[in-house]
Amino acid sequence: MKRFDLDYYITGLKSQNNVVLAQAITLVESKRKTDQEIADQLLNEIVKGSQPSIRIGITGTPGVGKSSFIEGFGSYLIDQGKKVAVLAIDPSSQKTGGSILGDKTRMETLSRNPQAYIRPSASGNTLGGVNNRTREAVLLCEAAGYDAIIVETVGVGQSETLVNNMVDFFLLMIQPGSGDDLQGIKKGIMEMAHGIVINKADGDQAKLAKQSKKDLLSALHLFAPSETGWSTQVELCSALEKTGFDLVWQMVQSFQSAMRSNSLFEKNRSSQNVSWFEDRANFGILQELVDQPKLSALQQELVLKVRQNEISVSKATEEMLSAVKELLT
Amino acid sequence: MKRFDLDYYITGLKSQNNVVLAQAITLVESKRKTDQEIADQLLNEIVKGSQPSIRIGITGTPGVGKSSFIEGFGSYLIDQGKKVAVLAIDPSSQKTGGSILGDKTRMETLSRNPQAYIRPSASGNTLGGVNNRTREAVLLCEAAGYDAIIVETVGVGQSETLVNNMVDFFLLMIQPGSGDDLQGIKKGIMEMAHGIVINKADGDQAKLAKQSKKDLLSALHLFAPSETGWSTQVELCSALEKTGFDLVWQMVQSFQSAMRSNSLFEKNRSSQNVSWFEDRANFGILQELVDQPKLSALQQELVLKVRQNEISVSKATEEMLSAVKELLT
Repeated sequence: MKRFDLDYYITGLKSQNNVVLAQAITLVESKRKTDQEIADQLLNEIVKGSQPSIRIGITGTPGVGKSSFIEGFGSYLIDQGKKVAVLAIDPSSQKTGGSILGDKTRMETLSRNPQAYIRPSASGNTLGGVNNRTREAVLLCEAAGYDAIIVETVGVGQSETLVNNMVDFFLLMIQPGSGDDLQGIKKGIMEMAHGIVINKADGDQAKLAKQSKKDLLSALHLFAPSETGWSTQVELCSALEKTGFDLVWQMVQSFQSAMRSNSLFEKNRSSQNVSWFEDRANFGILQELVDQPKLSALQQELVLKVRQNEISVSKATEEMLSAVKELLT
Repeated sequence: MKRFDLDYYITGLKSQNNVVLAQAITLVESKRKTDQEIADQLLNEIVKGSQPSIRIGITGTPGVGKSSFIEGFGSYLIDQGKKVAVLAIDPSSQKTGGSILGDKTRMETLSRNPQAYIRPSASGNTLGGVNNRTREAVLLCEAAGYDAIIVETVGVGQSETLVNNMVDFFLLMIQPGSGDDLQGIKKGIMEMAHGIVINKADGDQAKLAKQSKKDLLSALHLFAPSETGWSTQVELCSALEKTGFDLVWQMVQSFQSAMRSNSLFEKNRSSQNVSWFEDRANFGILQELVDQPKLSALQQELVLKVRQNEISVSKATEEMLSAVKELLT
């Protein structure tokens, strides 16, 4: 990887240079200490400088048509005067190590549009949890002038909460007929979603899609209303026939103005940043402590005892905590 | 809650007294410091004393028939000479606070059997994550003579990983026809499952169930083989007609002997204990640090700055970690 100084990145982002944007994301994802230092400075520089944006998270089971939707919806947004960045998050690749088919190939038209930036998800870099750098990538895209950021969950699993914690609007995509087995959709995801879009509402499935919308809306009535006062909306679309993008966008926009009217939009972003800070600080603190020779020796000893069933987990925890207390006094 | 001394709990558990078992689980779940101290001593006492047991985790979407299956399968196990404890884990109640319908009502026959112990999941106590005390409850049940422990995921969501990390055998329950939309079942859960049971394989659905089994088996071929060498098995059952329980039990038993033959059974339990220790210790360490006046003041200051967008998350993390480093030197 090529390395540059702080000014290079700042100037490049300000001039909306996509090559520099890609380099900056790579910098942020790097695990080298010197890279991380420049990355921290860069992120601190850009934290106040970006224009208003909307961050949209999209989830849905594989096969539901997320890529085709993003391809079409992204182009629609560009027609509305937006600059569109697409990021993907795939914690599931942690286990299988399987790399996702190149995102750029999946979204051919969009990737050729100069108003779009698509970041292929490198399975090695985009670790799940606190190590994930997608949040930082969002900030970098915004600094480079992108004002519609789409974060897609590629793997299915724990990624929904992760994405929900970094976007303004969370969109669940399903296909016609899913109304029947709504029980199959995790209730937690239904509760998270600000909007649901039923894709493939075309041809033979158009009628079924309408029925699904009805089913979904009555199912949504079962949930307690969100604290924000927003009720989850359901729209139909067809990524194939390029219909319904306007409805989805209207849904996002009415959410946005509802949230902005009582400052909930900004409050949500601030709270997201605070939890992100707390997560990262906690993670770092624990690493710091493990680096203490005395503690790491005790921990190894306790791990061994727990492994050999010589001590209960509770007791081992207690001993570990006593040692930490001592170190701190 | 009534309180007793350590001896009371130890003697009661040894004499397989279900009332004392229930009291001991309540003790472990208590957040009072004095209760926690006795609980730690108790857990340390029992850690080596229990007889061999099998811990089975069961997951599946709501409506698939988990309760009826556990009711029937539990009675079947008792007929095989086992003592059966049923515990439930429901992290989803964190958000909604909704309490689950009394588990005892759901499993009427089993709950009246003196060889069975069913712990209703109190939504207030059974927090998800590191605060969850289900692992401790498993140990207490084993100390009280239960040798088949069933841990059921009640809510759908993050609970699968949690349960998988505390059981020997992880069973996924689906219903006939699910083969069509296998994509809807989270791949991660499929990968975790040691066995899949298709419930409701009766009446009109018997044929469909057989087809589902076929579909599932060919889908399972797509997954990389597990590191343990175990291939996920699929069986049919009908909780309604009380058929297939023997097949499920055979599946669990052959898993168990395969794992025992190369010590993987014990190794898995040890690793689970080690991660459990690490999680609890980390959680405790962070609480300890937050109690340091200097650190907590700095953290509050940084949280405020992050909230007001005056500092980047990276920069705030860096400052927090410098302060921790200073405190430790």
